[in-house]
Amino acid sequence: MLGALLPDDVRPADAAVPLWTEPAECPLDRVGFYVPRYLGPPADLALMERMPRLQVVQLLTAGYEHALPALPPGVVLANAAGVHDASTAELALALILASLRGIDDFARAMPAGEWRHRQRAALADRTVVVVGAGGVGRAVAERVRAFEASVVLVGRTARPDVRGAEDLPELLPDADVVVLAVPLSEDTRGLVDARFLARMRDGALLVNVARGPVVDSGALLAEAGRLTAALDVTDPEPLPPDHPLWRAPGVLISPHVGGNTSAFLPRARRLVADQMGRWARDEPILHVVST
Amino acid sequence: MLGALLPDDVRPADAAVPLWTEPAECPLDRVGFYVPRYLGPPADLALMERMPRLQVVQLLTAGYEHALPALPPGVVLANAAGVHDASTAELALALILASLRGIDDFARAMPAGEWRHRQRAALADRTVVVVGAGGVGRAVAERVRAFEASVVLVGRTARPDVRGAEDLPELLPDADVVVLAVPLSEDTRGLVDARFLARMRDGALLVNVARGPVVDSGALLAEAGRLTAALDVTDPEPLPPDHPLWRAPGVLISPHVGGNTSAFLPRARRLVADQMGRWARDEPILHVVST
Repeated sequence: MLGALLPDDVRPADAAVPLWTEPAECPLDRVGFYVPRYLGPPADLALMERMPRLQVVQLLTAGYEHALPALPPGVVLANAAGVHDASTAELALALILASLRGIDDFARAMPAGEWRHRQRAALADRTVVVVGAGGVGRAVAERVRAFEASVVLVGRTARPDVRGAEDLPELLPDADVVVLAVPLSEDTRGLVDARFLARMRDGALLVNVARGPVVDSGALLAEAGRLTAALDVTDPEPLPPDHPLWRAPGVLISPHVGGNTSAFLPRARRLVADQMGRWARDEPILHVVST
Repeated sequence: MLGALLPDDVRPADAAVPLWTEPAECPLDRVGFYVPRYLGPPADLALMERMPRLQVVQLLTAGYEHALPALPPGVVLANAAGVHDASTAELALALILASLRGIDDFARAMPAGEWRHRQRAALADRTVVVVGAGGVGRAVAERVRAFEASVVLVGRTARPDVRGAEDLPELLPDADVVVLAVPLSEDTRGLVDARFLARMRDGALLVNVARGPVVDSGALLAEAGRLTAALDVTDPEPLPPDHPLWRAPGVLISPHVGGNTSAFLPRARRLVADQMGRWARDEPILHVVST
């Protein structure tokens, strides 16, 4: 009987098939369902070629480009759609609120004991454009709406409640906050370039919780001071200690912590249990990104 | 005909009565409706004794204790209920998210260019106890719920959806986050003392957007390290540069910026226009705190 190889921390409490959690102790020729470790080494993916009866690979990341080269023909690849939405959208709000309300400035003033009261912008009444209408973008939109702010969702193509990418040039000048929540693709690499930034109004805030290369770092540096920015991802990444973005005015940087929180494990466990049940019952696997 | 003396920035676009915005140019004996300036000096309140026909005083703050000594007998006093809810609740979320997700640490690491990635807690899945079931407390609860977290509202007395203050001892040990959103009164002064803090679990977060004296600063300092805290208000306030709270581990401080944001003026204008209309039409004034 085929079984599953998966990290111990996402192991389902009950499973109808044999489970292994240590590759060294696992008969790889009996693995039909494989979950590589979250943020694990490339060697985890190389194991696939030693699994002759492999049927499904369930990733714990939303991104999957890194797994494609190692995927044997005919094997179904599923990403962790939904698992990181809550955590990443939450970080987007943390960055928006910290930047607008000045929490980063206050934190830096604390060691000197400086009480720097001044009036700040609120998120209430602002217009927020969310670029990316997938799971993270929609989760950002839901949270922003709770703050009495308006949201415009922008997707690749227009549909009910979602504006198409072709409307971005006319939406950007009215945005107080622009949140990037798109996957990295040839369409989105360098999407935020000098022309994109030039359309944003003075003092507007750019938030990137997508991938670093969606923003042209040089173009952003040239606009720092006129615009503000809050970035969880950068290009390059990690950002070298001497990179000028670290010290650019109005820029707040977090070290790619969007997905890696306490919210991850419970959601990853639910996804793995659900997908493994589907596999065992011969039902369609969800979130298939490549077969 | 009686008229109104009010700050220029909350002046209604149209009003059925005479309006003055400069005390020096205003015939004080014709003032029936008075709006003292937001965060104005005590002299603004002393003007009331020179207004023999004064009927209504509309404050622009939620707190009103400071105005009571200057209030002439028979004059209606109304506070700015609702005006600061969105802004203050938003700051509570900014402090919760910044503290949980480490934005303050990241901000302090930026000048040195340090990329300090590590796993953090998310607000998702947490239990948040909000002490205070008035406008700010309810606005905090609505926003927290958008983050897939659970909320328990605690008021003075139990009612549907609100637990009574007598349940606090049993609620505190289960709280990941405790938000203080109560008015300052003899019941709430020193509410958060050593006993209150001792019931909170290791690593839990205390957030104060109420008033500084609700928390015993010495008791909090004694628990810093075991608990974390995010404080928009402190006791004393402003916090002196050499106060140990500034440098206590796990403590984040903002300089009383809960209400003073861009969200204030539009909401203050709507309240003043509504209340002045009620006064002119001889309808009941809302949010009366003393007559």
